[in-house]
Amino acid sequence: MAILLVNDDGIYAQGLSTLAKKLREKYEVIIVAPDREQSAVGHSITLADPLRIYEVEQNGNFFGYAVSGTPADCVKLAIRVILKHQPDLLISGINQGANVGASLIYSGTVSAATEGTMLLIPSIAVSLDTHRSDADYSTAVEITSRIAEKVLKYGLPGGIFLNVNVPNLTMENIKGFNITRQATTYFDDFFERRIDPQGRTYYWMSGTMVEVDRGEDSDLMALRHRYVSITPIRYDLTAKDKIPTIENWFKE
Amino acid sequence: MAILLVNDDGIYAQGLSTLAKKLREKYEVIIVAPDREQSAVGHSITLADPLRIYEVEQNGNFFGYAVSGTPADCVKLAIRVILKHQPDLLISGINQGANVGASLIYSGTVSAATEGTMLLIPSIAVSLDTHRSDADYSTAVEITSRIAEKVLKYGLPGGIFLNVNVPNLTMENIKGFNITRQATTYFDDFFERRIDPQGRTYYWMSGTMVEVDRGEDSDLMALRHRYVSITPIRYDLTAKDKIPTIENWFKE
Repeated sequence: MAILLVNDDGIYAQGLSTLAKKLREKYEVIIVAPDREQSAVGHSITLADPLRIYEVEQNGNFFGYAVSGTPADCVKLAIRVILKHQPDLLISGINQGANVGASLIYSGTVSAATEGTMLLIPSIAVSLDTHRSDADYSTAVEITSRIAEKVLKYGLPGGIFLNVNVPNLTMENIKGFNITRQATTYFDDFFERRIDPQGRTYYWMSGTMVEVDRGEDSDLMALRHRYVSITPIRYDLTAKDKIPTIENWFKE
Repeated sequence: MAILLVNDDGIYAQGLSTLAKKLREKYEVIIVAPDREQSAVGHSITLADPLRIYEVEQNGNFFGYAVSGTPADCVKLAIRVILKHQPDLLISGINQGANVGASLIYSGTVSAATEGTMLLIPSIAVSLDTHRSDADYSTAVEITSRIAEKVLKYGLPGGIFLNVNVPNLTMENIKGFNITRQATTYFDDFFERRIDPQGRTYYWMSGTMVEVDRGEDSDLMALRHRYVSITPIRYDLTAKDKIPTIENWFKE
């Protein structure tokens, strides 16, 4: 079994190397990850610039391929240039920081799983609910490994991948697995206005996520209640149930 | 009525200025667009770099605001920094090149409409089915104007925006409006390997869209049959019908 490992925090991220170490006990693991952090890049791909691939070592051994591009670029390059065979599974992560609600739209972690799904590879995006740089990934690694086994055993429905979020807790304190939906949230953006040394105005973007719904079946609430959230995600964006409404507009 | 006009081809694109000229006959139009082309950026936002806003003139008059960022950045800056009131409508486009099938995932044009929808602004993404730089946007402008009127009259269901594609034809040759779904397609990517003057390898990405389905109700087939395609798009990505399948995995 061969697993393609991707992320958006970059090839030197701890969430990636900790997961790789565990998975390599049991599977062939190929790492293709951005050469630097690529958070909030959404489903960006690189068409206007050349892409480069570098071999990266860890403790004197070959570790993986770093790519001068986005998470989606990494998946495309892995499949079309680096790998000789289609992998059995793609795992994107483990991301530092939860990807729930509106975050999915901006997430490079999620975009790599979307790209894998479009290229017909069973895919999982995994995030740990903490922004601490010294986070302990051991619980998330264990849970990712279990979910990977399930996907390899059962497969995934066509056009669907799993978005997994793990609470930042030890295994004993996690209550179980909840199959969830994406929470309805949005970002209340704030732009901090500053003046540069040349006297010109610039802005820094930041934002806090506003929770519009508190449904118990959401990814956000599962995490908050100490459950691992697993959301089945589709990349077909059509709101099929709304087609008749719009059709009526043109009938008058 | 105030319309926020955004795009991903950049503030100097012809599809934007032609549409602005027409809409300004009837509405207040505020233009906030990237200062350069931002195609295939997906739903990327700029967190690691400062953002700048420039005022741009056309024929000696104020034309709009150029932003040193992505289409999603433009929408956020428009709402939080530039505009005093929420606009009545957001139009993203008119894009040079269709946005059908898998293209929606990569499209900056579509991402601006997604961002508008998340910020509760009725939104439309519009694309013209040609890659010619000397394209005639007059038909697409007329059609966009008609659809804008419909949206202002009827509103849109919550969490939904319209993705509009216009055939590159004169008005008389367009057969009508089809309310469609996103076609199932994927990109067959090709990476051209080259060597730079320093002897290092790099790759250029290109790809052709492969049509997996030929359903007559798709955006792709509507365009091909000379109809304007209008697809209702949601940004909630949950595959709700697949939740029971995944739940069963954890019942054993």
